[in-house]
Amino acid sequence: MAPKGLDYEVLNENVKKCQYAVRGELYLRASELQKEGKKIIFTNVGNPHALGQKPLTFPRQVVALCQAPFLLDDPNVGLMFPADAIARAKHYLAMTSGGLGAYSDSRGVPGVRKEIAEFIARRDGYPSDPELIFLTDGASKGVMQILNAIIGSHNDGILVPVPQYPLYSATISLLGGSLVPYYLEETANWGLDIDNLRESVRQATFKGITVRAMVIINPGNPTGQCLSEANLQEIVRFCIQEGLVLMADEVYQQNIYQDERPFLSARKVLMNMGPPASKDLQLVSFHTVSKGYWGECGQRGGYFEMTNIPPQTVDEIYKIASIALSPNVPAQIFLGLMVNPPKPGDISYFKYEQESKGILESLRRRARIMTDGFNSCRNVVCNFTEGAMYSFPQIRLPPKAIEAANKAGKHPDVFYCLKLLEATGISTVPGSGFGQKDGVFHMRTTILPAEEEMPGIMDSFRQFNDGFMEQYEDHQGYSRL
Amino acid sequence: MAPKGLDYEVLNENVKKCQYAVRGELYLRASELQKEGKKIIFTNVGNPHALGQKPLTFPRQVVALCQAPFLLDDPNVGLMFPADAIARAKHYLAMTSGGLGAYSDSRGVPGVRKEIAEFIARRDGYPSDPELIFLTDGASKGVMQILNAIIGSHNDGILVPVPQYPLYSATISLLGGSLVPYYLEETANWGLDIDNLRESVRQATFKGITVRAMVIINPGNPTGQCLSEANLQEIVRFCIQEGLVLMADEVYQQNIYQDERPFLSARKVLMNMGPPASKDLQLVSFHTVSKGYWGECGQRGGYFEMTNIPPQTVDEIYKIASIALSPNVPAQIFLGLMVNPPKPGDISYFKYEQESKGILESLRRRARIMTDGFNSCRNVVCNFTEGAMYSFPQIRLPPKAIEAANKAGKHPDVFYCLKLLEATGISTVPGSGFGQKDGVFHMRTTILPAEEEMPGIMDSFRQFNDGFMEQYEDHQGYSRL
Repeated sequence: MAPKGLDYEVLNENVKKCQYAVRGELYLRASELQKEGKKIIFTNVGNPHALGQKPLTFPRQVVALCQAPFLLDDPNVGLMFPADAIARAKHYLAMTSGGLGAYSDSRGVPGVRKEIAEFIARRDGYPSDPELIFLTDGASKGVMQILNAIIGSHNDGILVPVPQYPLYSATISLLGGSLVPYYLEETANWGLDIDNLRESVRQATFKGITVRAMVIINPGNPTGQCLSEANLQEIVRFCIQEGLVLMADEVYQQNIYQDERPFLSARKVLMNMGPPASKDLQLVSFHTVSKGYWGECGQRGGYFEMTNIPPQTVDEIYKIASIALSPNVPAQIFLGLMVNPPKPGDISYFKYEQESKGILESLRRRARIMTDGFNSCRNVVCNFTEGAMYSFPQIRLPPKAIEAANKAGKHPDVFYCLKLLEATGISTVPGSGFGQKDGVFHMRTTILPAEEEMPGIMDSFRQFNDGFMEQYEDHQGYSRL
Repeated sequence: MAPKGLDYEVLNENVKKCQYAVRGELYLRASELQKEGKKIIFTNVGNPHALGQKPLTFPRQVVALCQAPFLLDDPNVGLMFPADAIARAKHYLAMTSGGLGAYSDSRGVPGVRKEIAEFIARRDGYPSDPELIFLTDGASKGVMQILNAIIGSHNDGILVPVPQYPLYSATISLLGGSLVPYYLEETANWGLDIDNLRESVRQATFKGITVRAMVIINPGNPTGQCLSEANLQEIVRFCIQEGLVLMADEVYQQNIYQDERPFLSARKVLMNMGPPASKDLQLVSFHTVSKGYWGECGQRGGYFEMTNIPPQTVDEIYKIASIALSPNVPAQIFLGLMVNPPKPGDISYFKYEQESKGILESLRRRARIMTDGFNSCRNVVCNFTEGAMYSFPQIRLPPKAIEAANKAGKHPDVFYCLKLLEATGISTVPGSGFGQKDGVFHMRTTILPAEEEMPGIMDSFRQFNDGFMEQYEDHQGYSRL
């Protein structure tokens, strides 16, 4: 009998090929164990509120009022909401035509896009055009929209860092394009070497692939590094030479845990370089309410800003965005609040500052506890998490462990992470889900578990890891490097 | 010089080919006129709150409390929120792990999916499995996910009604598939003739296209008809014979304006048919919070339910959904509330009933006012809007008007709708955006303008239309049919 339309054998091959490890085998197994009653510590995905981080109060007050605008007419509203939250809710409601229940413009509410442009101008010191800022249901959706515009066939290549966040590999697969990897140097704190980039492009060209764009993730996911101005300048020049779109994933720009290298946007570096560079590079920059000290993942709010993109292309991207009508409006309000938080003198300023600093300082301490913890374990080495939300330790698996994994039909790091999960309930993502050099193994974990639980988690990890190494290590040959 | 990655000439050809008239030329011109200060009546898109429809109070209270859960600890909460809204907010918060700020499972919050399954079981009289219900950022996103799984190349065809809602044509273009049209019969109140379907499939097969799925929109968009049980049974049998997935777009299931043909879900009809049919047909059904008496478009909440889809395929769809992590969580709560509204005896029941009935009864009156209004105009004929949110009158354009349109380089119905917009501020969508038979012209308008403004709008339309006809009619040859 002929197959039916949704039989597995006739599905879109690109769908089948796609892999997304962040919610892959490890996550599915963890969900099963949780159903069976095991306590699971989900560190597989950067989802702060799921691990107990409290939302910032002010933005939630404003959005609650926008959802229930009738409260604004309630004589008791002042008992439950501060005056600046009330004023701000009115401010955003006035920007919409029909409140949170109406589709907005497919690019987002114009007033919010204006506030974002003002934020970018303050951050970078150069004006930004609201017409070139599009709001999306989370930054991931924005990345997918841009890649969709670029990729027309498997001859269209995208330079992606390895290790990378698998949104990129999965989306490129799904769209039928070609991922062109460039390797980050673990021994140079996950730095990026321009000569490697050139070599990657050369090899891709040799295979008939036209490289069209380059992705950077800064601060790095899963690798946690912050790019320096010099490195960003090199990247800009390289992209201009090669005619590449630079896709700058800057969703972790608030998450910085050291003082030597503050976050620098690709746009600021570009503008600092002046013409002709500042007029030449096609740049798309991404940001979100899901990360930073906000962590409002579930709201699904993000934006992208386009620099030097031809107007005809902007129109095409707008047209495609309009098919799904509009991004969700509540998250657009969160974006407005993120870029325009309470100011000194506002009633809610002190509380907002206290909450946001509290989260950020705790994350900084947790980044340290985690990196130090990993480095105290047998056969584990880990670069310091300079930014973002992840640690990405290298696990030096003994040959016997690799053998055991092969026997079990598992990639060695999947084997290790599954054992870790079963023993401790810690749900991580194996390094193979992000890409790594052959014969080198990692895992990614978020630094998000509650600070007070962190020492216990690291102890439990150490106990598992050191036992695992004990079990599989050949006491003659292999030793700590 | 070689083109850059986002230069128009090298963009994904499928992106360029895509057309989406609902926010196309007419909408863009209307937005321009609005900026210039003209009063625009946006009837181009089913966006009730933008035209003044008030949100239902109870769901907004619940979601506001979920956004600001700290209010639940405020001693004054009872002054501003009824006890059942407070209880319901606690109920939904307990279902999430981390509140509205945490990513949910990529398929949606399990507890909400369970409530949806219970609703479907009550509605249809057959049990539904929550594991086969996936929540999405609006029904459009769900449709796109399913089409993405089905379409692998331009040889994959999708049967789509003409006239259709252009989400389908646009998405099929974007994915590089083939739209296989089947015509609805205007003279039979937009009914569907199975022989036409067979002929469409035959022609597609002749061109080397494998038809994989069939779309029905019930109640119809833009055509407003409600399908009968007999017609749905024929469709089911046809899809089974041809091995097609039936995609049932049922987003207007609450919007019914006559009593002869209540809404019947494709699933209920299928289950009523019993085995083997009920085990054979691959069915995906779509629903949303954007339509009905809810009209919560801006929240972006929808779901799809899968029937008889192989588990391996369900896993693939889950994997793809997980790349963008999760649908927005606030809209998931709205979905829960939509399928599980206040019950008799609840504090908020009376108000909820009053509000929802008020909206629905007014829509029913507006459907009548609008259809009657169109039918009283020169050279305009319009089937009654049995359901959904649109009127789709046929405009019998005189040959001279068609000539003038050709001269202006416009499709004749675009020409007409642009003139209407400039003269009256009424922003509609030309029938060519939905597909229609050659030489026949329509426009689509929503029935959503406020009821008190409706007579004025119809007067203004009539004045424009009759003047237009006067101007272009050949007083010898052409006359009212």
